[in-house]
Amino acid sequence: MKIIPVIMSGGSGTRLWPLSTPAQPKQFHALGTDHTMIQEAALRLSGGAFQAAIVICGTSHEFLAHTQLEAAGLPAQAIVLEPMARNTAAVAAVAAITGLSIDPDALLLMAPADHVISKPDVFRATVEAAAAMARSRIVTFGIRPTAPETGYGYIQRGEALDEGVFGISRFLEKPDLETAKAYVADGGYDWNAGIFLFSPQVMIEELKAYAPDVLKASEEAFASARVEGNTHHLNAAAFARSPSISIDYAVMEKTKRAAVAPCDIGWADVGGFSELWRLGAKDEAGNHIHGTGIPIDANNCLIHSASVPVSIIGLDEIMVIATASGILVAPLSRSQDVKLAAEAAKNLK
Amino acid sequence: MKIIPVIMSGGSGTRLWPLSTPAQPKQFHALGTDHTMIQEAALRLSGGAFQAAIVICGTSHEFLAHTQLEAAGLPAQAIVLEPMARNTAAVAAVAAITGLSIDPDALLLMAPADHVISKPDVFRATVEAAAAMARSRIVTFGIRPTAPETGYGYIQRGEALDEGVFGISRFLEKPDLETAKAYVADGGYDWNAGIFLFSPQVMIEELKAYAPDVLKASEEAFASARVEGNTHHLNAAAFARSPSISIDYAVMEKTKRAAVAPCDIGWADVGGFSELWRLGAKDEAGNHIHGTGIPIDANNCLIHSASVPVSIIGLDEIMVIATASGILVAPLSRSQDVKLAAEAAKNLK
Repeated sequence: MKIIPVIMSGGSGTRLWPLSTPAQPKQFHALGTDHTMIQEAALRLSGGAFQAAIVICGTSHEFLAHTQLEAAGLPAQAIVLEPMARNTAAVAAVAAITGLSIDPDALLLMAPADHVISKPDVFRATVEAAAAMARSRIVTFGIRPTAPETGYGYIQRGEALDEGVFGISRFLEKPDLETAKAYVADGGYDWNAGIFLFSPQVMIEELKAYAPDVLKASEEAFASARVEGNTHHLNAAAFARSPSISIDYAVMEKTKRAAVAPCDIGWADVGGFSELWRLGAKDEAGNHIHGTGIPIDANNCLIHSASVPVSIIGLDEIMVIATASGILVAPLSRSQDVKLAAEAAKNLK
Repeated sequence: MKIIPVIMSGGSGTRLWPLSTPAQPKQFHALGTDHTMIQEAALRLSGGAFQAAIVICGTSHEFLAHTQLEAAGLPAQAIVLEPMARNTAAVAAVAAITGLSIDPDALLLMAPADHVISKPDVFRATVEAAAAMARSRIVTFGIRPTAPETGYGYIQRGEALDEGVFGISRFLEKPDLETAKAYVADGGYDWNAGIFLFSPQVMIEELKAYAPDVLKASEEAFASARVEGNTHHLNAAAFARSPSISIDYAVMEKTKRAAVAPCDIGWADVGGFSELWRLGAKDEAGNHIHGTGIPIDANNCLIHSASVPVSIIGLDEIMVIATASGILVAPLSRSQDVKLAAEAAKNLK
């Protein structure tokens, strides 16, 4: 059994400004650990059945992706550069095409670079256990919910297909709180983590059936890519023709060959600084500090400083994020408004 | 009439950390204007009767003092470097000795570099009007109080000596609020701004009478100073022998030759960030912003950033001070606790 990780590293989110910037999005930063998120993603998918990774990222992030994986001792076996973002269906198509060109027998484990998984051993074991099923189906990993989260999509399990693997009844959009509570109480729903295990052949067949425009554009973009070493610069004109659509919409909600493997792997999508604080180690006053912090009379605060010391005095539940790009100060409860600051900062230029 | 400004630039306060640091105290920073405080001090005491300044500062600040005054087009005619701080009586002694060596006929106007004076025209006119009196007395400038401030010392006026100049009944320490209110209601009390106009001969005579140790140590330190161009490196061994005592205690409270000229010159001692906010220009939401600020849902805040943009979201009456030395975030009401952060930052090294 061979599994090639496909690390989706195309995000350019604004919800973690000024940490995350268009030039260096969050997956290229260390969030509360010694490694950057893309390094963590590669590290957790190494050893055993796992081969060197394929990385798919934006053209401007080639250097960061290359050097960070080299530095982690886990160089990618291929880096595929998207000239523009075309959502996850095109990423899955490019992943399948690239995987097929490398090793038609290897399964592909496609996962976002910017997620936190605190139980990597369990994750690897879950992936390996689902490998047999992935020969015939596209397996997604459903996270057993620990709370009625309204920020995630959900997957309703169908009939059992094999040990630990189920068919899928429905994909469900981000619910309101009441609905989320009902999902959790029911027990038959898992968070949609956007992690997929599949054979390249199955993915290509399903894309051909349900999203032929995506597949065609991706095939042309790959076939006419400029190749330097193991780096593929997808052809921009061809790739631009792909519809921008998620793999969930394009394939997973339609195909008869989907499956879900529910698991408890300590997964989190660090969508905002409040999650960063929630997930991070804390001092006795509840402060999570990355870099040098000087908290005085401060409780349940988040300090993230790239270089200079940050002192906070007499504050509760406040975040201070300081990088070379900017400084953000706000209550943790306003995490979802950080994108307003990112937008305003972008307009400064 | 010739008046030589003596700019006292020896402060190394910790109440404006991380703006003010031992390496670059507040007088070498711009606070809400385009010029640094020492530049502002030189600019407001130029033209008319005012000659080029004498600057008295610590040895480590020679370069900052020299280059900032050059940059303002107002080079000092002498820079006297203190190898250690010995309080304002020694500064007055050194000022008088230096002034005597330059021009025995010129009066000396000794003023701190780190004060704000928003009505420089009135200040200059007040100084010039007091010049005749300063031939025989040490004239201090009393600021007409605009509020019952408890952070300043007060001077009680005595009998009128001349138009706009009075004898001094008493010098009074920082009062409690009730006492301060009584002073303001009485109308016969002014803030002690620590600004003095005197002839070098009178100052030396009074120091000889009331603080002979200070005078002797200062004379020896000046006589044996290492001189480079117009820079005097006071002899450390000699200067160290001076008692560390303020000119108020050493001379002004004892001499019969003191006078006070009450005035309204828009004076303020920027002792903390709350004063910086109070004195600064504000946007319609009451935010005072120096540098690039992005306030979102923020009111009555202070942003001072040396370089990167600072965004604040959903905050009231918070200060964010960002320099290459550090970042401080606290409620404006905690301004007096900034020294705790400065102390902690110093101990990091």
